[in-house]
Amino acid sequence: MNKQIKEFRDYRSKMNERIITSDNLVLKRLFNLDTNTYAEGALSTRVKEMLGLVSSMVLRCDDCIKYHLEKCYEQKVTTEEIMEIFSVANIVGGTIVIPHTRRALEYWDLLNNSENQKI
Amino acid sequence: MNKQIKEFRDYRSKMNERIITSDNLVLKRLFNLDTNTYAEGALSTRVKEMLGLVSSMVLRCDDCIKYHLEKCYEQKVTTEEIMEIFSVANIVGGTIVIPHTRRALEYWDLLNNSENQKI
Amino acid sequence: MNKQIKEFRDYRSKMNERIITSDNLVLKRLFNLDTNTYAEGALSTRVKEMLGLVSSMVLRCDDCIKYHLEKCYEQKVTTEEIMEIFSVANIVGGTIVIPHTRRALEYWDLLNNSENQKI
Amino acid sequence: MNKQIKEFRDYRSKMNERIITSDNLVLKRLFNLDTNTYAEGALSTRVKEMLGLVSSMVLRCDDCIKYHLEKCYEQKVTTEEIMEIFSVANIVGGTIVIPHTRRALEYWDLLNNSENQKI
Amino acid sequence: MNKQIKEFRDYRSKMNERIITSDNLVLKRLFNLDTNTYAEGALSTRVKEMLGLVSSMVLRCDDCIKYHLEKCYEQKVTTEEIMEIFSVANIVGGTIVIPHTRRALEYWDLLNNSENQKI
Amino acid sequence: MNKQIKEFRDYRSKMNERIITSDNLVLKRLFNLDTNTYAEGALSTRVKEMLGLVSSMVLRCDDCIKYHLEKCYEQKVTTEEIMEIFSVANIVGGTIVIPHTRRALEYWDLLNNSENQKI
Repeated sequence: MNKQIKEFRDYRSKMNERIITSDNLVLKRLFNLDTNTYAEGALSTRVKEMLGLVSSMVLRCDDCIKYHLEKCYEQKVTTEEIMEIFSVANIVGGTIVIPHTRRALEYWDLLNNSENQKI
Repeated sequence: MNKQIKEFRDYRSKMNERIITSDNLVLKRLFNLDTNTYAEGALSTRVKEMLGLVSSMVLRCDDCIKYHLEKCYEQKVTTEEIMEIFSVANIVGGTIVIPHTRRALEYWDLLNNSENQKI
Repeated sequence: MNKQIKEFRDYRSKMNERIITSDNLVLKRLFNLDTNTYAEGALSTRVKEMLGLVSSMVLRCDDCIKYHLEKCYEQKVTTEEIMEIFSVANIVGGTIVIPHTRRALEYWDLLNNSENQKI
Repeated sequence: MNKQIKEFRDYRSKMNERIITSDNLVLKRLFNLDTNTYAEGALSTRVKEMLGLVSSMVLRCDDCIKYHLEKCYEQKVTTEEIMEIFSVANIVGGTIVIPHTRRALEYWDLLNNSENQKI
Repeated sequence: MNKQIKEFRDYRSKMNERIITSDNLVLKRLFNLDTNTYAEGALSTRVKEMLGLVSSMVLRCDDCIKYHLEKCYEQKVTTEEIMEIFSVANIVGGTIVIPHTRRALEYWDLLNNSENQKI
Repeated sequence: MNKQIKEFRDYRSKMNERIITSDNLVLKRLFNLDTNTYAEGALSTRVKEMLGLVSSMVLRCDDCIKYHLEKCYEQKVTTEEIMEIFSVANIVGGTIVIPHTRRALEYWDLLNNSENQKI
């Protein structure tokens, strides 16, 4: 697995575990609720993950973007679709979103490449 | 047509016209580009309007929310789907999004009701 | 009761009811979790409501500010304390917070005055 | 004087006075510092007011926008220059800035018209 | 002292010194005013630092979070209290605050651990 | 050339190229429009770059700040002028902008120093 992907996942897992084991009930429930939000419903998980991605982009949170890119990758979102999500984010959120788009596309390419390396 | 809907549309049209006729080329092109962003592509206009709606909610812009609600209404997005878009926006963006959700749902109901009145 | 206060409360109640009865489980649980967040714990409800107020101010949400001002009023936060919360919000968030501070102080004065009128 | 302009100025003056007389030293000093920020220096007041305007637009604060539009008007900023400031704000901040641009241009037109009425 | 803590403090001190010695009077006074904001008053420094922390979290500024965590640590804020501040920040600001919460809790643990190492 | 400057420019160029060659027309046009926004017009490129810089600061995007600092440097903006732009950004945007100001001033100093080394 690519080093950048591995580091992101490991740090995220370690600190989420640390937060959850801190016994703050509100944070535990919010984490739980966060997972439920993207479950299949009237909208598919696939569309919901796209909604999560575009929201993370206009709010300009790199780690949230990476997380939803991973989920979109699992949901077989294509690169062409990803670019259209990026275009909505950049039009709504402005050129201030461009630096995040650069890092997002780099991470998206890593996800696609690292997978290829497995084969 | 409902008064609140009419006022929103009239003001929006009048001032957009005022902006476009001011002969600022950058703004004209941005308005044009904005329209193109939601055209059918790898993603459908329907999904793109959902992306526009959720982005407007987490960025907390009431007028942008109303605009994308109208577009979602045109695209036959159901109330159940709208509520799931609202849920993503509120989980990602937090309870600070709730007051905008109240106004958004009120406007969504107006759109549905005023249409019914036409029949 | 003061008209502005009554309108705020009535609209808030009506639309919260509308959201909750829409049967979106994520939103219902988030509303529930929101209430739990400010319960007595390691920190008192009084301090937590101050935290909610200052957060609403730097994020510049007038309705959220009004809501937490009402809760601070219930918790017997003094005007001098409120002004210090406003000062933290304006220093951290900048002069962009000033217009919200104007409306917040007006609402705070209304809360104090309307209560006086009851006596 | 135009009614909308008068109401904006009257409310602003009244509540600023209320804040300053509350005897919170931090807020008093911040208000004072705010005034100093736009004084003639290495940059002219004219350019600084443009900086204040574009900042208010990308942060999407209608009252701050109105205030800086008034200051730009005093500084003889032309409509063509205002439109270019709007274009920077909309490109950097995205289409989420458009509703604020509509209200900003309306207010700018009012400022120019009401002045004409005086003559 | 822990390396991450030392680097944060050293860079902060060095660049604050650089800013202050640049002879921009507005920035100097703002820095000064910032210090005064958290002085004992109607509210204790302890509560004000909590207000500063929660504001920094919902505005998602990692360096501001670290700074206020250090101040909270000096004020003997407990880990249980810190977690409740985090819970308010995550509920008000949404899951977009989670990545900042991960880094905040890591830094909080470092502060507690590095202190222990001194003993 | 200074290493930090070189890395910023190289990564920016590489990923912008990657985005543009992805054949998403909306993003291509937005990149193009972004360039046009800062062209000489009613306002000079020099003033427009100052507007871009202050917008990037209040929106707190480090990479956008670096980019506009480079453009301001090309436009012979003086250090005293830069400090006044920083002061507007910090007053409007609050102390949350300070960490970005530290990094901005460091980068500005690098630009000035690395250039001196060329001579």
